[in-house]
Amino acid sequence: MNRPEFDLKAYLLERREKVNNQLDRILSQPAAPPRLADAMRYSVTAGGKRLRPILCIAACDAVGGAADDILAVACALEMIHSYSLIHDDLPAMDDDAIRRGKPTCHVAFDEATAILAGDALLTLAFQTLSGAGAAKPSNAAMWLRVIDVIAEAAGGSGMVGGQLLDMTAEGQPVDLPQLERMQRMKTGALIQASVQAGALMANADSEQIDHLAVYAANVGQAFQIADDVLNVEGDPSRLGKAVGSDAERSKSTYPSLLGLEASKILAREKIDQALNALTIFDNRAEPLRAIARYVIDRRR
Amino acid sequence: MNRPEFDLKAYLLERREKVNNQLDRILSQPAAPPRLADAMRYSVTAGGKRLRPILCIAACDAVGGAADDILAVACALEMIHSYSLIHDDLPAMDDDAIRRGKPTCHVAFDEATAILAGDALLTLAFQTLSGAGAAKPSNAAMWLRVIDVIAEAAGGSGMVGGQLLDMTAEGQPVDLPQLERMQRMKTGALIQASVQAGALMANADSEQIDHLAVYAANVGQAFQIADDVLNVEGDPSRLGKAVGSDAERSKSTYPSLLGLEASKILAREKIDQALNALTIFDNRAEPLRAIARYVIDRRR
Repeated sequence: MNRPEFDLKAYLLERREKVNNQLDRILSQPAAPPRLADAMRYSVTAGGKRLRPILCIAACDAVGGAADDILAVACALEMIHSYSLIHDDLPAMDDDAIRRGKPTCHVAFDEATAILAGDALLTLAFQTLSGAGAAKPSNAAMWLRVIDVIAEAAGGSGMVGGQLLDMTAEGQPVDLPQLERMQRMKTGALIQASVQAGALMANADSEQIDHLAVYAANVGQAFQIADDVLNVEGDPSRLGKAVGSDAERSKSTYPSLLGLEASKILAREKIDQALNALTIFDNRAEPLRAIARYVIDRRR
Repeated sequence: MNRPEFDLKAYLLERREKVNNQLDRILSQPAAPPRLADAMRYSVTAGGKRLRPILCIAACDAVGGAADDILAVACALEMIHSYSLIHDDLPAMDDDAIRRGKPTCHVAFDEATAILAGDALLTLAFQTLSGAGAAKPSNAAMWLRVIDVIAEAAGGSGMVGGQLLDMTAEGQPVDLPQLERMQRMKTGALIQASVQAGALMANADSEQIDHLAVYAANVGQAFQIADDVLNVEGDPSRLGKAVGSDAERSKSTYPSLLGLEASKILAREKIDQALNALTIFDNRAEPLRAIARYVIDRRR
């Protein structure tokens, strides 16, 4: 194929900046008490790859949509992701003091403020969606579907349910099907919803949505496997049982269950399946393709 | 006026049963992990007056709406209220072990499960709204406004923000304007949104919405004052400084700031203002009128 090399780096930089600017705008509204607003901003602007917003925008691009409100959806997804990290880090949950090199929200502020900042971010995510939708009543039905897809993925049968499974599994390592189910819920569901919401915003047809769902499921799983692999390669002594801060809690990981090499092969297979699902799309899906390749080629 | 006596008791019983049955249906969906689903059901079905759902339905009735989806909105409001109680009771927040005569969620389950049950209920509230709306695309714009109104009231500038102010005020009693602001956000905002959402579901015009907003603001404040008064009358020794479990935390209340008699007079004035705001409505607003009178006449 005589395809010009797609410049993923420039694409990511541009989209990340747009998302970050829009998040700044959303989070600088002065209606919340200052301490709460500070904690919300602190956590959302603490860095991060903005994977979910970028997948959402790239899915919209792949379908050829020029949805000018896509940033509202992208930011809602990132706010939901941020809230989940704040709550996951709490002492009663994973009890993590550092996230992305900075003190976690409950360390930088306090536990009550962290719980409330998470609650407020989740609520603001839905307000951002409903507000953007209400401003354009002609597309209202589409916005309701987007909200529905995101809410289902973020809730008890998705992200929150996966975190519950993760918590209750502590101390008793799980097997591969259990690990897969837990991660499909905990991180996979919102990644899937990010891609689907972007496609819905671009008025994708059902064939396109189905193919993008296969793409997203495989990218989501490859992303998790690659994360586990990178943790081990950063410190091979961790292969023995579990990874990173998970080690003290005896959490299972792909390398601990499959071994390092088999994990890498599995991640590559998932990416191949993700790329196969995109064959119905033209070169407007190059961002999605490049993101899939990047997931397993990235270095810490 | 030759108005037949409105049977509030029968009205409340019938609406409460409908709301409770619908909540049962929503919460019996098996998609969430069993422990999470149990904790969500435990907290939502722990009793309670269902004030917000009933205000929502009564506002819809007052405008003459026959919105058959009003139960979805009513249940979403109750799930948001329930989630806020779960999180407010947490050790890092008010640290309450008993709620409505039963162990609080984090006592009956554990802290992580309680945090996640709250998160899942908040998310399910929005999913309930978007799902009901997406099923009837012709009214989609109205549903987006309902979601927007509820999200704004529940978030950082409303309920969550009020809880943050309540937490940060601990140990330093507030003055009356601060108490009013805190309670307007913490409990008033969602009560206002309940009435407004019911009115929107019935296609209320802007004059009706404005009058109902005045009604709701006054009922919300009277409800809080009456609650404080009932606590003192249940145990007069509590008047000295603060009320009930608030006493140990030196929280200000209306009786501690105004005295008992002045508090009662203020509550009655608020109810008079609430009733005045309803003069533009016909006898279909009888439920709203009866609820307002009940707020200050109830006994524990």
